[in-house]
This record gives sequence, structure tokens and C-alpha cells, in this order.
Amino acid sequence: MRRMESTESAYRLLLSELKEISLLSSVGSVLGWDERTQLPRRAASTRADQLSMMAKLIHQRFTAPKIGEWLSQLEGSQLDADAKANVRETRREYDREVKIPESLVQEEAHVSVMAQQGWAEARKQSDFTAFAPWLEKIVQLKLQRAKCLGYAVHPYDALLDQFEPGETTANLTRVFESLRDPLVQLIGKIKDSSHKTPAEILERKYPVAAQESLARQAAAAVGFDFDAGRLDVSTHPFCTGLGPGDTRMTTRYDENYFGDAFFGVLHETGHGLYNQGLKAEHFGTPLGSAVSLGIHESQSRMWENLVGRSQSFWTFFMPKAKSAFPETLRGVSEEDWYRAINDVRPSFIRVEADETTYNLHILVRFELEQAMMTQSLSVADLPGAWDEKMRKYLGITPPDAARGVLQDIHWSGGGIGYFPTYTLGNLYATQFFESARTDLGDLDAQFAKGEFAPLLGWLRNKIHQQGQRYTAGELVKVVTGRSLSAEPLLRHLRNKAREIYQI
Amino acid sequence: MRRMESTESAYRLLLSELKEISLLSSVGSVLGWDERTQLPRRAASTRADQLSMMAKLIHQRFTAPKIGEWLSQLEGSQLDADAKANVRETRREYDREVKIPESLVQEEAHVSVMAQQGWAEARKQSDFTAFAPWLEKIVQLKLQRAKCLGYAVHPYDALLDQFEPGETTANLTRVFESLRDPLVQLIGKIKDSSHKTPAEILERKYPVAAQESLARQAAAAVGFDFDAGRLDVSTHPFCTGLGPGDTRMTTRYDENYFGDAFFGVLHETGHGLYNQGLKAEHFGTPLGSAVSLGIHESQSRMWENLVGRSQSFWTFFMPKAKSAFPETLRGVSEEDWYRAINDVRPSFIRVEADETTYNLHILVRFELEQAMMTQSLSVADLPGAWDEKMRKYLGITPPDAARGVLQDIHWSGGGIGYFPTYTLGNLYATQFFESARTDLGDLDAQFAKGEFAPLLGWLRNKIHQQGQRYTAGELVKVVTGRSLSAEPLLRHLRNKAREIYQI
Repeated sequence: MRRMESTESAYRLLLSELKEISLLSSVGSVLGWDERTQLPRRAASTRADQLSMMAKLIHQRFTAPKIGEWLSQLEGSQLDADAKANVRETRREYDREVKIPESLVQEEAHVSVMAQQGWAEARKQSDFTAFAPWLEKIVQLKLQRAKCLGYAVHPYDALLDQFEPGETTANLTRVFESLRDPLVQLIGKIKDSSHKTPAEILERKYPVAAQESLARQAAAAVGFDFDAGRLDVSTHPFCTGLGPGDTRMTTRYDENYFGDAFFGVLHETGHGLYNQGLKAEHFGTPLGSAVSLGIHESQSRMWENLVGRSQSFWTFFMPKAKSAFPETLRGVSEEDWYRAINDVRPSFIRVEADETTYNLHILVRFELEQAMMTQSLSVADLPGAWDEKMRKYLGITPPDAARGVLQDIHWSGGGIGYFPTYTLGNLYATQFFESARTDLGDLDAQFAKGEFAPLLGWLRNKIHQQGQRYTAGELVKVVTGRSLSAEPLLRHLRNKAREIYQI
Repeated sequence: MRRMESTESAYRLLLSELKEISLLSSVGSVLGWDERTQLPRRAASTRADQLSMMAKLIHQRFTAPKIGEWLSQLEGSQLDADAKANVRETRREYDREVKIPESLVQEEAHVSVMAQQGWAEARKQSDFTAFAPWLEKIVQLKLQRAKCLGYAVHPYDALLDQFEPGETTANLTRVFESLRDPLVQLIGKIKDSSHKTPAEILERKYPVAAQESLARQAAAAVGFDFDAGRLDVSTHPFCTGLGPGDTRMTTRYDENYFGDAFFGVLHETGHGLYNQGLKAEHFGTPLGSAVSLGIHESQSRMWENLVGRSQSFWTFFMPKAKSAFPETLRGVSEEDWYRAINDVRPSFIRVEADETTYNLHILVRFELEQAMMTQSLSVADLPGAWDEKMRKYLGITPPDAARGVLQDIHWSGGGIGYFPTYTLGNLYATQFFESARTDLGDLDAQFAKGEFAPLLGWLRNKIHQQGQRYTAGELVKVVTGRSLSAEPLLRHLRNKAREIYQI
């Protein structure tokens, strides 16, 4: 029998163990960043071995019985609010992780590296059959995982809960469905509007070096600290935290299209600001960790769309853009530019989609993932089902797999259940933003002067520095006074459509 | 009591444990590469925590009693030659590592990251006093380490043995002294020679992009596989193996000097070829590991100096250089170029020194390190002692600390005892090269046609693929038929001096 520790000592031991485990996990993040930005072609299998070994070590340490014992002891003791939150969230994760056998953790880590390489190759060739065996493997692994985790209603619930703790398929279906028909309607009206945007401005020539410099200016202007982070290039843009003082984001540049890199960087900057805003002294504990992927995404969406696509942002930023691209933007008015970056138009690629159609891309994936997890849809039938849903919701048919079912990296990395957090992010973002407007007065006047510190300060205080003090559902209520609803997002999109398309 | 395993099973368990430990250690190498090429300024302390945690884990695993038990059992059993070598070398390392307490391992790892950042800052300011407290700390740690390891004669022996197993201060002193006076004499004669080289050709304008492209061509031409490696930029050039399929080298470019980057890359390529030549199926065991730092350095020196500064190499490569720098090299003859890249002239910076003066830079460090380890020289007196030795051996006085005692990264990383392996590398390289000439016929005729595969094949077979089958001393005898001697290096340098300076 382990000697019973004092409450204080059990808490201290728990935190110190959690911090060591997080340090291991941050080492895994270094391996992951490097894999996606630097890895030589022939090193994939070595990297898979390294990542799967780290996953095993982390899983072993986190599921050790002593952690369960400390938690039980602390749950029976008087704790302050900080400690209560740390114990509650550690318990949630501990109970989840002990259900997963080490062999599964290792196999998932290994398969995900190899499958990502397989996906990248298959996408290049636009050949779904080359990726299908990997996806089969991943679906089997995720079914196994869902079975280990257990679920009340839907196997998809088990996966969803890992990314958005407490979220359910039933609740998401309800919220997403209240979004679907109004969005399809709105997009129809926009299509029929006689007002068009000069979106082709974005397809002129934008030299890559100037794009990068402008994107860095924008990230720094809204508050990203480049002494505590980096911006690099990768095939699939992402942002990752490698521990205190080290937040890294990536993007990709297309000389013939402005939107991808610039708004992509603002998006990753939103993630980066959340990471940089977590309290370093709480590193490794729930109080120093992000609430959920949905809340994380709310930060990226807010800076990308609610700030970055606002007219006031460009009142401040247009002169900088004009000086970066003097030829390309000669004679382009602020109004033209604002209309161009807010063009709404069904398209094939999710990450290039506008604010409005974007959520229908997520609905497609949300519905297909559920079908795969109930095995009512086979991997072989996936491309057909994909195209059918694209026709139904967006009215377009992908010309090939690369611009259809093969476009996203997520499934190859094992991220089934991840996509819904993107639309959750859009919903949280607009609901938070309405409250920020109420609290901070005329945000547009501030943006127009390049003042982003009030908004960032508000987010730091209300969200970043809270860590996991509240669950996502609680946080929304604490910050906005209401439960999550589709109304703020619909209101925002309808306002934009009114301005741009006179609807 | 642990149940006695069969010999076969004990060997299998030992190898599998060694491979896992090496995988952890390769993860540490990823962290190290990233630290030196990518790390944001404010992430140093996080990276120190990560590296020190990995060092602790590796040390814990490698010094576990079960490894000692497997070794003892295997030492009493019949083994084939492969197994014998693996057991012998693992025993050597195990006996060394169990003497070092975990706390020292962790402290060294932590201090080395922080001290490297401190060194970089101090060098930038050319301020030795800013670095002195870190060096004090490191000398204390190394004294502690030497005491833990134990030594018969000189505390420096204990440090040396880590980088060059079996090497002693006494033996090195003997070999290095047989080199010192002849070198000082030779350099004196060169100084007095009326023949000069057109070394200023190298100080013209060489655009960085073309330098990089040319260096990549050279590395690929001699056999470096860029699908299994990378070339990046860092302040202090290095090469590191991150596991099978992943060998990374770095360099730095100076637009106004050709020599540094080009020969630097050929140097790192030599290290890289050794890494890429180790047998992947032996990864993680002594048979898949390099013999010693000195033998590693012999490979880099061979490709940098014996190949890269030969006339025949430039018969092949000069047209490529001319097409990379058509303006800069207009009218430069192959003969001029060959003389320019073989200029001998005392200078301040070791890594920029020519083949001949280079070894005196090492002697300076070799003697100062010994004095620090017997505490007959204090850190405070080090800059003065440095300058005095530079005057004595090379006849020049560094104008400031940045070009003197602060120039190298090694001490800040804890690498006391490391420098002598550079001159050992020069000695091994020339002795190996004389044998290669005997075995392979007219190497110069091959180089002139761009044929490097015969030499690389010979090295692969005789050295790279042997792993640690032989110790460094044995390997030299097996490959060349003789013990290590200063004669081949002196012969080579005198031949060059005769050609270039008519001595």
C-alpha cells in the first residue's frame, strides 16, 4: 500500500508529474512540426518510430495508477477553485486514457505518420484508391478506439468527446441543422443577386516575398510575438505549441492568389495568440491548457474573419497592402477590396472557402464521418457519397479526388471527429465577438486606427488566461451570458450579405 | 532474482532495449538540430527543460541493472563476432554511464542549452566576462564528471575517453608534439617563400543563392543523398544524424568569401556520408554506430581537404563553379584557383584556417583544456593564455575575444576534450587516404572525371559499414596496416607546400 500523502503533497506531486508528461508531449509536438515542415522523404519510417515511442511513453506515464490514486485522494479533500479545476479536468482525461491500451496508442501513432505520407502521395496523383487502404486501417483503429472509450448512443460521440469534451452527436446535429437550411437559402439568394464582387482582384500577381512580409506585418500588428514563435511554409497550414515561448505556425503561398496565405496566416495567428496567452506558470496543467479545439478555433476564426475581413481592418491595413503590391493594387479602392475579400461562391476546397459556404463543407464531413463510424458507408463508397453531398449542399461536383475527398490531411492523421470543431469555432467566435462589441465599445473605430490591444486584452482575460477553468459550454455562458446558438453566426453572415450583395 | 534467460533471448532483449534507447536519443538529436536552426529567442528555457528531461530518461534506461545483467550473462557465453563487438562496446559505455549520477546528467543538459545562448550573446558583444560565469559552471561540471568517471593519470583522460574511446592524454601529447615543431617550421618556410597565392580571388563577390546551389551540387556529386538528409543554415555549422534516413547538415554563407560555405559543406558532407553509410539494420547498436569522433572527423577532413582541395577535383568542378559565378570567375585559371584554395596563412578563426595552420589551433585548445582541468589555469586567466599561445604557435594576436577565446561553441555545450578529435581526424584521414590510393589506383584520374564512387565504396566497405566492430586504434591498423602516425599528414602538407610555395 502507498502511504497516504497529505492533500497538499498529493496535489504537488500530481502537478509535477503532469508537467513532466506535458514536457514529453511538447517533445512530440517538436517531432510533429518537424515532420510537416522539414522531414526528408526517406525518414518517414524513423519518424513514425520516434512518434510512436513518445506516444507510448506519454500514455504509460499518464495512465500510471499513482495518478488515479492522487486524483481519488484529492477528490475527497477541500480544494481551492484552481485545484478543483485541475483535478476535474485531469480526471476526465485520465478516465479516458486508461481505457485505451498502450498497443493501440502506439499503432495509431505509427499508422498516422505513414498514412499522412501515403495521403500526400495519393493527393498528388489525385488517386483515391492509393489512399483507401490507409483510410480502411484508420477507420478500423477509430472503431476500436470508440469501443474502448465506450459511448451511450453513437460511436461518433466517443471520438467527438476527445476534441470537444462533453459535446455529443445529438447536440451538434441539432445546432448544425438549425444552420444548414438557412445557409443553403442564403447562398441561393446570393447566387441570384445582381450585385457581384470584383473577386478577380485577388487572382492577380502577388509576389511571394511581399506576401510573406505583409502577412508577418499583420500577425505582428494584431499581437503575435515573433520572439516566441515562427512562421514557416508547409503543404497543409497549421499552428502548434511546442511549450512556453515556442508557438509555430505555417502557411503556403500562391503567387497568383492573395487570399490563401494572408487570411491563412491571420487564422493561424488567432491560434497562436491563444497559445501565447496561456499562462506559462500553469504549463502542463489544465489551467494552462486550451479548453477544446472548438474554442481554439473560435480564436482563429475571429482574427481571420471577424477582424481580418472587416472594413475597418482594411482602413488601417490597405496602405500597407498597397505599398507591398504597388503595381497589382494600383487603382483598387478600399471598397472594391472589401467586396473582393468577402465574395461568397461555392467552391471545392474547404480551406479556400468563404465564411458562408465554409460551414456546408463541414456538414459534408460531419455526416460522412458518422456514416463511416456506423459502417453504413464503406471506404470504397466514400468518394461517391462525397460528391453527392457537395452537389446537394453546394450545387457543385468536384472534378477530381484531389479537389474532393482527398483534399484534407485530417483523416490520414487519424482525426475523425475533428472537423465539427471548425463550425463550432465559427459559432463560438461570432457569439464571443458580439459580447466583445458590447463590452469594448466601437471596435471598428479601434481597428481602423490599428488598435487591436483592447480586443486581444479582452480575449486574454476572458478566455486565454482561464485555461480549462470552465468547460466550453460553461465558458460560452460565462463570457456571453447565453448558451451556444446559431443565431449570432447567421446574423453576421446575413449582415455581410446585405452589405455586399444588397440582400 | 531475475530468471536466467537463454543467451539468445538475453541478446535479443539487450538489442531491443538498445534500439529503444537510441530512438529516444535520436529524438534528443531532433531537439538539438531544431535548437540550433529554428528556436525562437524566448523558447530557450523550454528547450533546456525538454533536453534535460530526455537526457534523464535516456540515462535512466541505459543504466538500468537489467542491462548490466544481460551483459554479464553474455560475457560468459559463446558469441559470434557481431555479438561480441556489440557486447564489448555496450559494456564500455555502460560502465562509463553508471558512474554518472542522474542529477549530473540533467544539470549538464540544462546548463549546456542556457550556456550556448549565453555564449552566442557574449560572442556577439565580444565580451568574455559575460561568458565567464557559464564557463566556470561548465568547468566545475566537467571536474565533477571526471571525478565520477575516474582516471589513472590526468582528469583530462576521463573526458577524452568519452569522445575517443581508449585515447589518453599521454598518447595524444606524444603524437601532437611530433606534429607541432615540424608544422611551426613549415609555416615559417611558407611565410618566407617568395611564391604567393592569389587568395584574394576567394574574397570577391559570390552571391549566396549561387553558393548554395553549387555546394548542393558538390555534396550530391560525391554521394550525399538529399532524400535522406537536408542542408540548412546555422551560426555554427554542424552535421547530425536523427536516425536512419535523416542526416542533416548546416552551413553559413558569406557573400564576400567563397571558402567558408563551400568547403564547410564538403566537410559536413563527409560526416553525412559516414552517417548515411552506417547499416540501418544495426541502428541503435554499436555495430550501427560510428567508431569515435576522431574517425568521424577523418571522413569530413578527407572530403573537405584531400578530395575538395585537390587539383583533380577542380578539373571536374571548375566548369560548374564558372557557370555559377560567371562574372566573378571570368579569366580565373584552374591553376590560380587551385593555388588560391590552398593558401597557407596564420589566421584567427579555427574553422576558416587552412589545412596546415589548423592543427596549431587545436594544439592551443588541447593545452588550455588540460590546464583548466588541472585547475592550473583559471577561467579569468584564459583569454590571456589564449592570446599568448596564438602568438607562440601562429605568431599573431587576436584583436578581440570574438576572434579569440570566444570563437567556438564547444565549451558552451560542455564539449571539453572534444577539440583533439579534429587533429586526430586529420591524421586518420591522410593515413586512410594513402591506403585508398594504393588500393584504388589513380584516384586523381577518377576525381577529374567526377568519379567519386570508387572512393566512397572503399570507405563504406572498410569503415562506415563496420560500425564499432573495431576500436579506432584497431581500425587504423586493419585498414592501413600500421598504427597511427603523424607522418602521412606531414608528408601531405609538405607535398602541398612544395607544389604551391616551391619549398
